[in-house]
Amino acid sequence: MASSLSPAPVPMELHVLNREKLLKSIRQHLTDTSRLLHGFVFLQGGDEQTRYCTDHIELFRQESYFAYLFGVIEPGFYGAIDIATGKSILFAPRLPAEYAVWLGEVKPLSYFQEKYKVSMACYTDEIAGVLLDQYKGSGKPLLLLLHGLNTDSNNFSKPAEFEVLNFSLFLFSVTALRHGMEKFETELSTLHPILTECRVLKSDLELALIQFANDISSEAHIEVMRKVRVGMKEYQLESMFLHHTYMYGGCRHCSYTCICATGENSAVLHYGHAAAPNDRTFKDGDMALLDMGAEYNFYASDITCSFPVNGKFTSDQSLIYNAVLEAHNAVIKAMKPGVNWVDMHKLAEKVILESLKKGSVLVGNVDDMMVERLGAVFMPHGLGHLLGIDTHDPGGYPKGTERPKEPGLKSLRTSRDLQQGMVITVEPGCYFIDALLVPAMENAHTSKFFNREVIDRFKDFGGVRIESDVIVTANGCKNMTNVPRETSEIEAVMGGAPWPLNKK
Amino acid sequence: MASSLSPAPVPMELHVLNREKLLKSIRQHLTDTSRLLHGFVFLQGGDEQTRYCTDHIELFRQESYFAYLFGVIEPGFYGAIDIATGKSILFAPRLPAEYAVWLGEVKPLSYFQEKYKVSMACYTDEIAGVLLDQYKGSGKPLLLLLHGLNTDSNNFSKPAEFEVLNFSLFLFSVTALRHGMEKFETELSTLHPILTECRVLKSDLELALIQFANDISSEAHIEVMRKVRVGMKEYQLESMFLHHTYMYGGCRHCSYTCICATGENSAVLHYGHAAAPNDRTFKDGDMALLDMGAEYNFYASDITCSFPVNGKFTSDQSLIYNAVLEAHNAVIKAMKPGVNWVDMHKLAEKVILESLKKGSVLVGNVDDMMVERLGAVFMPHGLGHLLGIDTHDPGGYPKGTERPKEPGLKSLRTSRDLQQGMVITVEPGCYFIDALLVPAMENAHTSKFFNREVIDRFKDFGGVRIESDVIVTANGCKNMTNVPRETSEIEAVMGGAPWPLNKK
Repeated sequence: MASSLSPAPVPMELHVLNREKLLKSIRQHLTDTSRLLHGFVFLQGGDEQTRYCTDHIELFRQESYFAYLFGVIEPGFYGAIDIATGKSILFAPRLPAEYAVWLGEVKPLSYFQEKYKVSMACYTDEIAGVLLDQYKGSGKPLLLLLHGLNTDSNNFSKPAEFEVLNFSLFLFSVTALRHGMEKFETELSTLHPILTECRVLKSDLELALIQFANDISSEAHIEVMRKVRVGMKEYQLESMFLHHTYMYGGCRHCSYTCICATGENSAVLHYGHAAAPNDRTFKDGDMALLDMGAEYNFYASDITCSFPVNGKFTSDQSLIYNAVLEAHNAVIKAMKPGVNWVDMHKLAEKVILESLKKGSVLVGNVDDMMVERLGAVFMPHGLGHLLGIDTHDPGGYPKGTERPKEPGLKSLRTSRDLQQGMVITVEPGCYFIDALLVPAMENAHTSKFFNREVIDRFKDFGGVRIESDVIVTANGCKNMTNVPRETSEIEAVMGGAPWPLNKK
Repeated sequence: MASSLSPAPVPMELHVLNREKLLKSIRQHLTDTSRLLHGFVFLQGGDEQTRYCTDHIELFRQESYFAYLFGVIEPGFYGAIDIATGKSILFAPRLPAEYAVWLGEVKPLSYFQEKYKVSMACYTDEIAGVLLDQYKGSGKPLLLLLHGLNTDSNNFSKPAEFEVLNFSLFLFSVTALRHGMEKFETELSTLHPILTECRVLKSDLELALIQFANDISSEAHIEVMRKVRVGMKEYQLESMFLHHTYMYGGCRHCSYTCICATGENSAVLHYGHAAAPNDRTFKDGDMALLDMGAEYNFYASDITCSFPVNGKFTSDQSLIYNAVLEAHNAVIKAMKPGVNWVDMHKLAEKVILESLKKGSVLVGNVDDMMVERLGAVFMPHGLGHLLGIDTHDPGGYPKGTERPKEPGLKSLRTSRDLQQGMVITVEPGCYFIDALLVPAMENAHTSKFFNREVIDRFKDFGGVRIESDVIVTANGCKNMTNVPRETSEIEAVMGGAPWPLNKK
C-alpha cells in the first residue's frame, strides 16, 4: 500500500469556532464597549495574481487571517462579523454569466452560506448597503480593519478596502461598485493584535489538521528516505515528497519551498529557492538535510530530517547528528507551559556545544562558550517558531515585547513563554558555515575554543537539522511528527524496515 | 524504466542568439538611426514576491522578456544591450555577507558573466555609472524600455525603473542606490513590438527546449493514462503528471495550472483553478480531459489528452472524440506558411459540425450552421495560440491587426498568417455547455439545427479537447507532441501496450 492515510474531512465548524473565539476575545479586551462593540470586524480576502504582464494565473492561496476566520478557498471575497450580534456575513464576487463557460458553475449565495456556515452571504457590490442595514447602533457604524506588523517579514497586513471599482478575477473584469466607505468609521489598531493572539493558541479542530499535515508529511519523508539513491538530483527528493503528500494527502500546497540540501548545501539554511534550486547531484558519503512540509486545508507542517544519502552514518556524521538529536530531545523533554522559549534555545545551544566538546571539535569550558555566544556560530537560526496557517505563524512578538539582540537569539521568531495550545517547531541544527566559522576562529574571544585539526575534517560537511512540530499541552508537550530519529532507526528504515520498527 | 528521457543540457548560446536577433531587428527597423542606434535596450528582471503580509516566499520565476534575452534564473537583476556595439551587460544585486548563511554562496560577478555569456557583469547600484561610461554617443544616452500591451491579459509590461532605493531580496533589504534615471532619455514605444516579434519565430535552440518539454510531458500523459483507475480523485492525475515531469525531466514549473477535468467538469474550459481544484472523484463511464504541460528552462509545452477513465470508449464517446480528432488532424494537414489562423479555426469548426451532423446530434446544412456561428456553441475557445516562454506567447495581435468580433473567433489569441518557425497549439474541442447550448437551442436562428433527443444523451457528457504543439516548417508543419491519439491507440496504451505501439 502506498499510504495508510487518506485526507481527513475538514469541518467548517473550525472556522465558526475561530470566529466565536475572536468575538469573545474582542468583547473581553475592549473597555470602550459603547463604541467598539457596535461595529463590524471587516476583512478582505485575497485576490488572484497574474505573472508580470501575462495572463498566467498563479495558483491562488487565501490570505491567512481571512482563511482563519472564514475558511474560504475562492478569491475575491470579503467577510464581516457583527460584534454586537455575532452574525457573520460573507461577500462573494458577482460573477458574469461567461464564468460558467470558462471557470465553472456560478454558485448561488446559498451555496457559500451553507458551505462556510455563515449567517448570511451577499455580493461584494452590496457591502455598504448590507452592513448599514444590519447595523443597529447610532451614528456611523465602525469597521475594525486588519492592520499590523508581521514580525517575521516586517510587512504590514493590508486593511480591507471597498472603494475599488474594478478588479480582475481570473481575467474577468468584475465591476464591484464598492462605493460607500465614507459611510463608516474605520479603526486600525484594535483587530490585529487580538486576532493574532487568537491564532497563537490552537483549538482541537485546528490541531487535527496540523496533525494530518504532519502525518502525511512524516510518511512522505520516510518514503523519500527509502528511495534515496546516490547519484540522484536533490530535486528528485522534492518531487517524491510533493507527489506523496498530494497523491495520498490531497495537499496541493506546500507550507514552504522544499529545502533538499545535500553535502555542503546542507549548511545553507534556506537552500532550495529559485537561485539555489535543489539541483545538485549528490554523492556517496554526503549528508542530506530535507526540510519539507505539506499544507492541509491551510494548516502547515514543517519537518526536517537529516541522514546520510547512502544509508549508513559515519562516526563524524553520528557525532554531529547526535549532538543535534540530543538538543532536540532535551528541549522536548523540558517544554511545558510557562517555560520561556529563549531558555529553550539556550538549552539546545548548550547541549550541542557539550557534544561538540565531547567530540573534540571544541575545547574549553562550555559556560564560557555560552557567554561568548559560540552556539550562534553553529546554529545561527532560532530554535523554532509558532506554526499554524502560516509556517511562521504570527504572534511571536506581541506589542511591548522585544526581540533579543545577541547573535543567534536575535534570529528567534518568538521569545514568549510557552502556553498550552501553542504549536511550535523544535528545530535545532549544527552547521559548518565558513562565513561564520572563519571570523569566530579568528576572533580573540572565541578562537581558543576551536580544535582546528578536527574542524578541518568538517570543512565540506554541511550541516544537520532535526525539526519536529510540537504541541504544548497542560503538563508538557506532544510531538506531532512521527519519523525515525535515532541513527539506528534511520539506518533500519533506509534499509527497508517498516516504520514504526517492529519490536523484537 | 521510469523514463527514457533525461533533462537536456541548456545552451546559454540560445540567449546570446536571442540578443543578436533583437539587435539585428532593431537596426533593421529603425529609420532614425542617428538617435536610436546610440543607446541601450534596458530591461528589469523580476523580483521575488512574498505572500500577503507574511515572509512566505513564492517560488520565483523570471519575467519572460528578461528570460528571453538573458536566461537569468535569479531575482533582482537588470540587463542592458548597447545598440551600437552589441555589448551586453548584466546587473546583479549586491548581496550582503549574511546571504551566504541563509541563502547560499555570494557569487562573484565573473560567475554571472560566464554563466550567462554576457560581455560584462556589474552590480545594480552601478547601473547609471556603467551605462554612462559605456556610452560613446553625444547628449544623453537613450534607454529603450519595455512598454506594451499583452493582448491575452490586457496588462501592460512594466518599463524598467532604477530610481528605487530599496528592494527586498528573500527578505534581505538591499539598498541599491539606483539614482540617475534623470541622466538618460527614455523611450517606450520602440522596443516592445520589435522584441515581441522576435519571440514569435523560434530558433532551433528554442525549438529543442520546447521539444524536450513536449517529450517529457507526452511521456507523463501516457504514464497518467496507464495509472488512471475509476474511483480516483482528479488531483491524483495532476500529482502523477507533476511528479513525472519533475522527477525525470527536472521541470520544477508547469506552464500553467493543470486542468484535470472528469465527467461534466470537462466542459469547464479552465477547470482546475483554486475555486475548482481538481477535487472530484471520478466514476466509471466518465471522460477525462487532461490539459497539462511542463515548462523546461522557461519554455512551455501545452498538451491535452481526452479519454474514458475506464479505458474503453462508448459509441457516444467515440463520436465526439473522433469529431475533435478529425478537426485536429485536418488542421495539421492544412497548416503551412501563409495559411491564415482564422481559416484554420473555421476549418476545425466545420469538421466538428459535419461529424455532429453525421452523428445525428445536429441536422441541416453545415454551411448554414457556419453562417450562424454554431461552431462557437460547441467550441467557444480559439483553435490555438502561440507557445514559447509563455504558454500564451505574446505577438498574437501586432499593432494594426484587429481581433475578430464574432462568437468563437473573438476568443482566438491570434488571427495571423502562419510563418515558418512559429510554434502554435492546435487544440480543437467539442463541449456540451448548458450556458451556451440552452440559449442556442432557444434562438430562432439556430434552434432548427439541434436534434433534441440526441443532445439529451450528452447532458452530463462534458467535453473533449485534443491539443498538440505544432511547429510551422518551410512546407508544412511538424507535431512536437507524441501521445496516442486514435481511440484504438488510447485503448491499447491504457490496457498496457507500449508506446509507440509495436507494429505487427
